[in-house]
Amino acid sequence: MSKYSSKWIKVSEPFPTVLHIELEKAPVNAFTTEFWRAYGDLFDSLTRDGYDVRAAVLSSAFPKIFTAGLDISAASALADDGAAQGRDNARAALQTHKIILEFQHAIGAPERAPFPVIVALHGHVIGLGVDIIGACDIRYAASNAVFAIKEVDIGLAPDIGSLAYLPKITGNHSLVRELTYTARPFSAVEAEKIGLISKVVQGSREEVIKESLALAKEIASKTPIAVSSAKHLITHSRDHSTRENLTYTAAWNAAAVMTNDMEILLRSKAKKENPVFPPLAVSTKLSKL
Amino acid sequence: MSKYSSKWIKVSEPFPTVLHIELEKAPVNAFTTEFWRAYGDLFDSLTRDGYDVRAAVLSSAFPKIFTAGLDISAASALADDGAAQGRDNARAALQTHKIILEFQHAIGAPERAPFPVIVALHGHVIGLGVDIIGACDIRYAASNAVFAIKEVDIGLAPDIGSLAYLPKITGNHSLVRELTYTARPFSAVEAEKIGLISKVVQGSREEVIKESLALAKEIASKTPIAVSSAKHLITHSRDHSTRENLTYTAAWNAAAVMTNDMEILLRSKAKKENPVFPPLAVSTKLSKL
Amino acid sequence: MSKYSSKWIKVSEPFPTVLHIELEKAPVNAFTTEFWRAYGDLFDSLTRDGYDVRAAVLSSAFPKIFTAGLDISAASALADDGAAQGRDNARAALQTHKIILEFQHAIGAPERAPFPVIVALHGHVIGLGVDIIGACDIRYAASNAVFAIKEVDIGLAPDIGSLAYLPKITGNHSLVRELTYTARPFSAVEAEKIGLISKVVQGSREEVIKESLALAKEIASKTPIAVSSAKHLITHSRDHSTRENLTYTAAWNAAAVMTNDMEILLRSKAKKENPVFPPLAVSTKLSKL
Amino acid sequence: MSKYSSKWIKVSEPFPTVLHIELEKAPVNAFTTEFWRAYGDLFDSLTRDGYDVRAAVLSSAFPKIFTAGLDISAASALADDGAAQGRDNARAALQTHKIILEFQHAIGAPERAPFPVIVALHGHVIGLGVDIIGACDIRYAASNAVFAIKEVDIGLAPDIGSLAYLPKITGNHSLVRELTYTARPFSAVEAEKIGLISKVVQGSREEVIKESLALAKEIASKTPIAVSSAKHLITHSRDHSTRENLTYTAAWNAAAVMTNDMEILLRSKAKKENPVFPPLAVSTKLSKL
Amino acid sequence: MSKYSSKWIKVSEPFPTVLHIELEKAPVNAFTTEFWRAYGDLFDSLTRDGYDVRAAVLSSAFPKIFTAGLDISAASALADDGAAQGRDNARAALQTHKIILEFQHAIGAPERAPFPVIVALHGHVIGLGVDIIGACDIRYAASNAVFAIKEVDIGLAPDIGSLAYLPKITGNHSLVRELTYTARPFSAVEAEKIGLISKVVQGSREEVIKESLALAKEIASKTPIAVSSAKHLITHSRDHSTRENLTYTAAWNAAAVMTNDMEILLRSKAKKENPVFPPLAVSTKLSKL
Amino acid sequence: MSKYSSKWIKVSEPFPTVLHIELEKAPVNAFTTEFWRAYGDLFDSLTRDGYDVRAAVLSSAFPKIFTAGLDISAASALADDGAAQGRDNARAALQTHKIILEFQHAIGAPERAPFPVIVALHGHVIGLGVDIIGACDIRYAASNAVFAIKEVDIGLAPDIGSLAYLPKITGNHSLVRELTYTARPFSAVEAEKIGLISKVVQGSREEVIKESLALAKEIASKTPIAVSSAKHLITHSRDHSTRENLTYTAAWNAAAVMTNDMEILLRSKAKKENPVFPPLAVSTKLSKL
Repeated sequence: MSKYSSKWIKVSEPFPTVLHIELEKAPVNAFTTEFWRAYGDLFDSLTRDGYDVRAAVLSSAFPKIFTAGLDISAASALADDGAAQGRDNARAALQTHKIILEFQHAIGAPERAPFPVIVALHGHVIGLGVDIIGACDIRYAASNAVFAIKEVDIGLAPDIGSLAYLPKITGNHSLVRELTYTARPFSAVEAEKIGLISKVVQGSREEVIKESLALAKEIASKTPIAVSSAKHLITHSRDHSTRENLTYTAAWNAAAVMTNDMEILLRSKAKKENPVFPPLAVSTKLSKL
Repeated sequence: MSKYSSKWIKVSEPFPTVLHIELEKAPVNAFTTEFWRAYGDLFDSLTRDGYDVRAAVLSSAFPKIFTAGLDISAASALADDGAAQGRDNARAALQTHKIILEFQHAIGAPERAPFPVIVALHGHVIGLGVDIIGACDIRYAASNAVFAIKEVDIGLAPDIGSLAYLPKITGNHSLVRELTYTARPFSAVEAEKIGLISKVVQGSREEVIKESLALAKEIASKTPIAVSSAKHLITHSRDHSTRENLTYTAAWNAAAVMTNDMEILLRSKAKKENPVFPPLAVSTKLSKL
Repeated sequence: MSKYSSKWIKVSEPFPTVLHIELEKAPVNAFTTEFWRAYGDLFDSLTRDGYDVRAAVLSSAFPKIFTAGLDISAASALADDGAAQGRDNARAALQTHKIILEFQHAIGAPERAPFPVIVALHGHVIGLGVDIIGACDIRYAASNAVFAIKEVDIGLAPDIGSLAYLPKITGNHSLVRELTYTARPFSAVEAEKIGLISKVVQGSREEVIKESLALAKEIASKTPIAVSSAKHLITHSRDHSTRENLTYTAAWNAAAVMTNDMEILLRSKAKKENPVFPPLAVSTKLSKL
Repeated sequence: MSKYSSKWIKVSEPFPTVLHIELEKAPVNAFTTEFWRAYGDLFDSLTRDGYDVRAAVLSSAFPKIFTAGLDISAASALADDGAAQGRDNARAALQTHKIILEFQHAIGAPERAPFPVIVALHGHVIGLGVDIIGACDIRYAASNAVFAIKEVDIGLAPDIGSLAYLPKITGNHSLVRELTYTARPFSAVEAEKIGLISKVVQGSREEVIKESLALAKEIASKTPIAVSSAKHLITHSRDHSTRENLTYTAAWNAAAVMTNDMEILLRSKAKKENPVFPPLAVSTKLSKL
Repeated sequence: MSKYSSKWIKVSEPFPTVLHIELEKAPVNAFTTEFWRAYGDLFDSLTRDGYDVRAAVLSSAFPKIFTAGLDISAASALADDGAAQGRDNARAALQTHKIILEFQHAIGAPERAPFPVIVALHGHVIGLGVDIIGACDIRYAASNAVFAIKEVDIGLAPDIGSLAYLPKITGNHSLVRELTYTARPFSAVEAEKIGLISKVVQGSREEVIKESLALAKEIASKTPIAVSSAKHLITHSRDHSTRENLTYTAAWNAAAVMTNDMEILLRSKAKKENPVFPPLAVSTKLSKL
Repeated sequence: MSKYSSKWIKVSEPFPTVLHIELEKAPVNAFTTEFWRAYGDLFDSLTRDGYDVRAAVLSSAFPKIFTAGLDISAASALADDGAAQGRDNARAALQTHKIILEFQHAIGAPERAPFPVIVALHGHVIGLGVDIIGACDIRYAASNAVFAIKEVDIGLAPDIGSLAYLPKITGNHSLVRELTYTARPFSAVEAEKIGLISKVVQGSREEVIKESLALAKEIASKTPIAVSSAKHLITHSRDHSTRENLTYTAAWNAAAVMTNDMEILLRSKAKKENPVFPPLAVSTKLSKL
């Protein structure tokens, strides 16, 4: 077990540079503040440390549920809060604002990581579960997965990512709105139809993790300079015009094409060997100031 | 019949807080300036009045056609206008500019409403019909629906919404361009394939209205604070980067989570009753100044 | 053969105002700097000259391959360059930056043309091939087409267009990322599933070109004012919010609706004849100053 | 007195096509909802009607005060409202949101007008007064003018325009922030120093109105196509990048340069006469549909 | 001395809720990585803790220098780094990228604080010193202050804030570019002329701190809801169009106007007393989950 | 005389790497299409060739006039054009659109150059003259300079740059609008007051050129990597939010800090010698493909 593991998050390295990150807060991976802070910290620590990860698979540790979403007592607290008396509502709103921003920042951590995160979905993927997957790179779902953008049913609009990501990363706004307004469950097949997932894996947790790890292994065999740059640039593309993205890409690749990995690739191709690339993170004098 | 009904638009309330809005300008719902002004005014009035609508279904009153689009004499006038002599072309262009903006504003009215608008499509959905549906939340189509982005065939590029909405709310730019440049008809199935509609309802007007009303009823049972916020935030998401949307969402929900509806939900859940939520609009001292 | 033909690009006009542009650098349409400069120049020349093109079909001249992408010696040079010694890396990066921008500008030329470009895909569409098609309007693929976003396998992130276009013109970010990170081949069917192409044409080069030319002919029969405006406005829509696009569209169409083509349309309709429209480009006194 | 005059707003036409708009709600031009609605309606009506205005001067009708800002009872109501009990805070916030948007829209009306609005400032320009002037084109101030961004002193951040406009239309963010956070009064000289006004006119109401009307007359002698386009394009420039603005300008002027006013100018120059331009608004067939 | 003080940063509270933050790394406040991390952490800690600060004054602890900018050994390290051999340049660039982002984030911390930061400038304000002041709210300078955007003279373009802020917060791009390209020193008077500072205080460190503290005390007497909202909204305004800012402001103030501080203001006014406002930060159930 | 000189543009190199570019189309530097094409081509050629320029001074060759703006016959042609009969107005507008974009691109060329352009203004700077200076880096004006944004007086809104640049690079929108709407002349002192120029040089052509060349020489002594990067990043800053600019800057400087120029600087400082930097442009293998 990795030193990155924590109370409710198990981190292992089934293949070199491939991480498996499992959520295991019994019984249903309900998220408390402590839990989502730990979740964000994990990805931010890996990024800050420059740990040599080239791909990660995120899943639940439990066979029947990915996550039930926000902890129910949290929801109750929210409700009580709204009804509180004798309090300055503006100050309460400012405080809530601060917490929402911190919450969004934590759940968005996988996007800031320099390696792709593949989320292996299975069983129930409820509420916050959908916010979580938007900030991951690739989504695989077992055929037994059941999704629900559940927030409307607890009385609020999703605010941690679902509405920010879904209209951009999928291809059917009509259905995204329908699913959001009704909070109704939808299957892996329907998720694939709107473009939310890459593919439906027949089976449940075991099968989808197996395929996700295989994909992670494949990605981990590539040069991390290219994969990490591609991740960074696709994310940029989602949020900028084509022209802005091309301009940024030109600045980015002006440095990235200086990598020696191209030469490693050519040499290994000539020798018909698998290329071996050094880790992404290096120590420079600058970083030791 | 509702007081919101007008010459060519019938408004009824088949279920409490659920409106059915029917276009009925015989024979083909061709839009004159008076008609689209009435259309925009209807949604803007409902919004301004704070009428307690929680979901609306928009359809044609005629079995075989949703709309033929812009009134043909309008198109002729446009043509004559272009050929006019002895006139200041710059001034004419400024005047046209003013009218296009007003026209866009009217057709965009459903997007400004605080409740979801489900459009039930059936029969011919031509030209302006496609502009209209882009500004609605959810699109259901009967299997007999036939669409056409017809503007190129009357000599102009669509300017009331189709080109602003379609590339963003669907998932295939190649096909959107093909349909626009050729003005060819396309079926409900093809519309579903590109992500323009949520689903194809087997049948025609009656069937698609039935399913749309059922969906509206389902949405109307939810807390209007959450539904209305979700609508507002998805629309914002379509037009902003994820970061901009998350920032805006945090400011928005800082106030929205103060609703008592969460407590209503928890209490009714405890009692196993259906929750009953108050209307969205309230009168405040501010609003009476 | 057209005067626009050049060493590796054959330009013909199979129907009046319909161009067929064929890439024919044996054996695999590998792109050198000279080749991509000629490619960009072709479209920019047609645009600058105001040559009367109303639709163009882009294809390979070879039966089994659309393009293998960047020339292999180019890739090698890139690699050597990265490893060079005794050189100022900042200056090298600035120089690379300049070249990438020029390269992007050349490959983006079809988007700047006032006529739609339909790309007929068949056989291998590798690396730069995918960048190329993003800047075209409509994509048809033969069932034998095989795509690969190959750049990661030569050690860099795609920087000429694939990542700028794909996340916007298709409907499944999960799959776009998967294909980019793995560089794995994908079929025409998978391309259609994510919304990259309009349709799969059973067969190979011959069949897809035939259907593409038929589509081009159909588009060329329309008024070029409307088609060209629609192209311009859809491209704008992809990169701006709905409101920005509506605002721009109103300014644009204020002039475009002055065209006489509407009257031509009405008259020919009355006479049941096919309308004949004048070319798009006109000479004005301004243009002769 | 013009038909556009209303209870608290006097509209006169001291020179042809030059309007003088005077606020005269005794004793201090304090704004109630009815007042700001009338204010917005005035400009929107002039715009909608296409009334032939080529420049307008906005001033107070009272010698010692431009405006004291928001009506004091309004502020009190706001305060009471904030302390209200037994109310759904989220619904109250939504209602407030709706009113703020409407308020902003009304105060922003001069910006939407096709003619320049010169605001002649004198005496006290407090709170809402500063919001108001941001949406005007040109600001002249008498040397006796005293400004204050007063909102912080009644307990809120300015939300009707001051903070949206000031950081963009002036040249010293440090001072804008200082003035906002302290709500302290500042003189016409200080206003000129930060670039808020064009010039300080020695004297008070009479003098500044005289110079403003002279400026308005000068502007009214120019072609309204050019002035109105320039206004539209500067406003666009403030809110867009140079490239976006150049792109929009090219689309706009493509139509605007078709005006006959250029020929009128050349002919009158040849004859050494003052040019006479027709009104901006024309009636087209389109506008009569 | 406050618990927020650290090795090189002295934090005191000369008046309740007013902080004085002094940089005191002898001899010239040269910034090492440890120093700028401490600088960023200070502001982020105050913000995270919700410590009751209503205004802060930032200054140097040394009479003759505000800061000499980046530590000289840091600059040397940068230089050596650039000449390093046998290293992967792309990886080095990625690492540098990560450090620049972290550095920018630290120096930008005052902008994220909910209270205004007034920077009292005196003596030499070199290089990083100019980056630092851009992220502060208000800039006061002693007449002995000498500024220099020094980065070009050590071989790089400023990348921590000067170029991001200066063109937006001042009013003369020509001079900003001149000062940047030449790295020449400029006086407080010239800084005031371009709009970089609010005012020149005759004297040196003592005098400018005295006036800055007086201003801070004045601001601290206001309602923190209004001041903090105003700060947040001006910052937003700098980076968004007027429309975007108005939209955001409406959402923000919908919650902020619920504050009881308005009532406190009215009551204290009635009683002719100074209003006393509660701290900004409150504890809510949500924050204790 | 440099090989870059052409019919109406004299290019000399008074000091190594410092260019003096003089406009000399007798009698008043009136711009025809051929002239502005040559103007744009000059800067684009220098940029494309990588000619070793480190700063350039742009001036008129004539003592009394910088430029009278657009050629008068051009303006007449514009007028005639607007009145033309029997022509398709939409096609004419499209053609005008194309020409405006090309015109804007030519006048914007100095901004695309990797070296700073200082414009030395003297005598009359009329119409297009103001568009021209917006795209230059630094503006010096002789005290005899007289400016006029003259376009309104020939019947159109400025469309080549004045309105895109002025509201962003100066600090007084009120005055910018006043000057634009009235087309009135304004002096160098007024230009300095609004922040349009860096300084007023007492005298006329000779004096302002002398000071401009001195400034150019000073800039040319700096490392071109730093100066060129600073220029690129300030231009980016003008058109993007602070966050966008910081993000782009981090990507840019990640490569730029690899320059050996830092080491050259340190070494020359140690030896108390003037540093000598290599040219900016280098030849790489990539550029020779």
